[in-house]
Amino acid sequence: MDYGLTGATGKMGREIVNVFRDHSLVLAINSKGEELHGTPRVVVDFSSRAALDRTLAVCARHGAALVVGTTALHDDDFAKLRRYGEVAPVVQSYNFATGVSILKIILREYAPLFGDWDLEIVETHHNKKKDAPSGTAILLRDATGRDCPTHSLRMGGVPGDHAVLFGNDGEVVTFAHRAIARNVFAIGALRAALFTLTAAPGFYTFEDVLKNSRS
Amino acid sequence: MDYGLTGATGKMGREIVNVFRDHSLVLAINSKGEELHGTPRVVVDFSSRAALDRTLAVCARHGAALVVGTTALHDDDFAKLRRYGEVAPVVQSYNFATGVSILKIILREYAPLFGDWDLEIVETHHNKKKDAPSGTAILLRDATGRDCPTHSLRMGGVPGDHAVLFGNDGEVVTFAHRAIARNVFAIGALRAALFTLTAAPGFYTFEDVLKNSRS
Amino acid sequence: MDYGLTGATGKMGREIVNVFRDHSLVLAINSKGEELHGTPRVVVDFSSRAALDRTLAVCARHGAALVVGTTALHDDDFAKLRRYGEVAPVVQSYNFATGVSILKIILREYAPLFGDWDLEIVETHHNKKKDAPSGTAILLRDATGRDCPTHSLRMGGVPGDHAVLFGNDGEVVTFAHRAIARNVFAIGALRAALFTLTAAPGFYTFEDVLKNSRS
Amino acid sequence: MDYGLTGATGKMGREIVNVFRDHSLVLAINSKGEELHGTPRVVVDFSSRAALDRTLAVCARHGAALVVGTTALHDDDFAKLRRYGEVAPVVQSYNFATGVSILKIILREYAPLFGDWDLEIVETHHNKKKDAPSGTAILLRDATGRDCPTHSLRMGGVPGDHAVLFGNDGEVVTFAHRAIARNVFAIGALRAALFTLTAAPGFYTFEDVLKNSRS
Repeated sequence: MDYGLTGATGKMGREIVNVFRDHSLVLAINSKGEELHGTPRVVVDFSSRAALDRTLAVCARHGAALVVGTTALHDDDFAKLRRYGEVAPVVQSYNFATGVSILKIILREYAPLFGDWDLEIVETHHNKKKDAPSGTAILLRDATGRDCPTHSLRMGGVPGDHAVLFGNDGEVVTFAHRAIARNVFAIGALRAALFTLTAAPGFYTFEDVLKNSRS
Repeated sequence: MDYGLTGATGKMGREIVNVFRDHSLVLAINSKGEELHGTPRVVVDFSSRAALDRTLAVCARHGAALVVGTTALHDDDFAKLRRYGEVAPVVQSYNFATGVSILKIILREYAPLFGDWDLEIVETHHNKKKDAPSGTAILLRDATGRDCPTHSLRMGGVPGDHAVLFGNDGEVVTFAHRAIARNVFAIGALRAALFTLTAAPGFYTFEDVLKNSRS
Repeated sequence: MDYGLTGATGKMGREIVNVFRDHSLVLAINSKGEELHGTPRVVVDFSSRAALDRTLAVCARHGAALVVGTTALHDDDFAKLRRYGEVAPVVQSYNFATGVSILKIILREYAPLFGDWDLEIVETHHNKKKDAPSGTAILLRDATGRDCPTHSLRMGGVPGDHAVLFGNDGEVVTFAHRAIARNVFAIGALRAALFTLTAAPGFYTFEDVLKNSRS
Repeated sequence: MDYGLTGATGKMGREIVNVFRDHSLVLAINSKGEELHGTPRVVVDFSSRAALDRTLAVCARHGAALVVGTTALHDDDFAKLRRYGEVAPVVQSYNFATGVSILKIILREYAPLFGDWDLEIVETHHNKKKDAPSGTAILLRDATGRDCPTHSLRMGGVPGDHAVLFGNDGEVVTFAHRAIARNVFAIGALRAALFTLTAAPGFYTFEDVLKNSRS
């Protein structure tokens, strides 16, 4: 797969280059310009909101699909993405960790079966993390459709653990996710990029990617 | 709820009586006969295959629904249960642990999303347990649709833990179940009994109970 | 071993009778009197402070050792126990769970090695438990000699889990204890009772029992 | 602390440079020669057995202490290290993970208290690891003084988890270690290097370092 990348030299960009190592980086976009070695079929952008217009312009020029993991997008950004989705596949998500997304889907669908069970969430992250509970803990809690006690541990260099626990008198069921390293999101981006190769034009979430790559 | 019970004095029977304590045991069936104090709306049988004919006869006499957790049933037993399902709700399962059944459903549906992840199962039971891996471990493994390494720990008095682990380069996702006590199955039987109060006649599995009590 | 028991018909008393089933209950003491069938070598009392005087009198009459797990003792109770320790072995503790006691010893000795690691404690108990954090969590925290965040989960029927976690940039070390059932304390009482059979007269803690039964 | 490093450009060398970032690398030793910018108080060598003679010669020239994590040393290597230990502190170990070493000490001392409990070990590593069980699992098992079932999971990119579980009828006690990243060993090397600054000349293991840095 020939792909393009916005912000290739940043921390997340380097992770993407590493995870995409079996594919060809033919277009590197940064704030100063573009370096082109071929025609990208998909462009990946995990940089920042400020870069989005340029990224979209480059995609349009090459007819490339887009995978965008930039956070804090505005409503008009989404409007632009949906509009480009009319001509090519666009995958947008704030969380490209495959496991987290699958757990989110499962909890949304199955948490009601645990309606009368106790529910608590425990998350552990490195001690440099400032917010608590983590965004992912909130996302998983929202997926259960209930409010619940949420415990935040801050321990050394832990990349990120989450456990959603349901308990009744006789059983405890746990759904747990552990990030091994920061490359989790790059692995999800690769999955999304491969998905765009065969997808029809459209605006997709990462969940759509997961659901469609099941069969 | 007025209920009947086959084998009320056995170990499982006593668990059921305890868990059903907010309901009225109006009919106790054992190998010697029946003790009747009212009209049961549902009969629960976790005793043995040998008792099934009598249990079915009693159900028919009262027009009662049936919840049956007896193991090692034969084909003709199933035929009888299905036939009685034409006149009243019948719930049959080899495993009435709610959490295990929900995990089974989830794994059957979502394990394909983890198609290229490593998969291993770990189960822990008390050191009196002779078979390994446990029936539940096999059931969960079957639900994933894949074969995988399955580790059996035998530790003291542990009632039964199961963990299904999926791992890739960047993430580990764990689905875990822990039985706190032997009353797990009685709790599931209560759920099934309550389900029969409003269900149409039919032959149901415990999964049907779970799916229908969701809404 | 021929043993006596104060409060044999209470909940804890019945657990003790069950766990001591390979030994002979020759003396049952309750608020109304004593039932005697032999000469006890050790008397076990997990009943209440109010029973202590009678228990001590009975011990003195038979020259029996004493294992006492009664909580909320007063200073003068301790004085009486120490005085009786001059003539027979007395084991007193507020916590007869072997594993908890061993972890307490280990943490007291080794927590200083984790001096610059993050430290957090997580405990999970059934949802009927009113106090948080649990007494055992406090006991383990005290053993570390540090204060730390302590998270209390209240989930269904969980008998009692405790985890003490130390984390630095590269590692997490966890010391965990899980009570499988309420009989934990009875098992510890048995260990203490067996210890008294060969111990010199004296006042002992449960830690002394553990340390001396190692060799 | 001014320190020297053998094999600074290798994978482990780069980890050490990163973890020692608050200290000054004043001497870099590699197969071609030495680059000197000051007088090292301690030299760190995690390279290979072949480099040991040169490393020792450099240490002697500067009167520097030595921290050596090179594996597969021969008896005469140990003889040389002990001899140099007569003039300066030498710390040698095959495993500089602090948590593993502490658990090893604890298990050696306290496993006898769990003499009649069931014992099993579970370890999880990335799926590229060829040997099973892991060297660390064997080391921990040896520390317990018992043989036991040892389960090896190979899952995605897991750096290395170990759990030593003791269970009896009423309790499970778990001693667990999780490596977050490969820098674990470099962190231990830093601890050892700091230890040498105040230690008397002598041949030390990593356990000696841990025990002496407690007070």
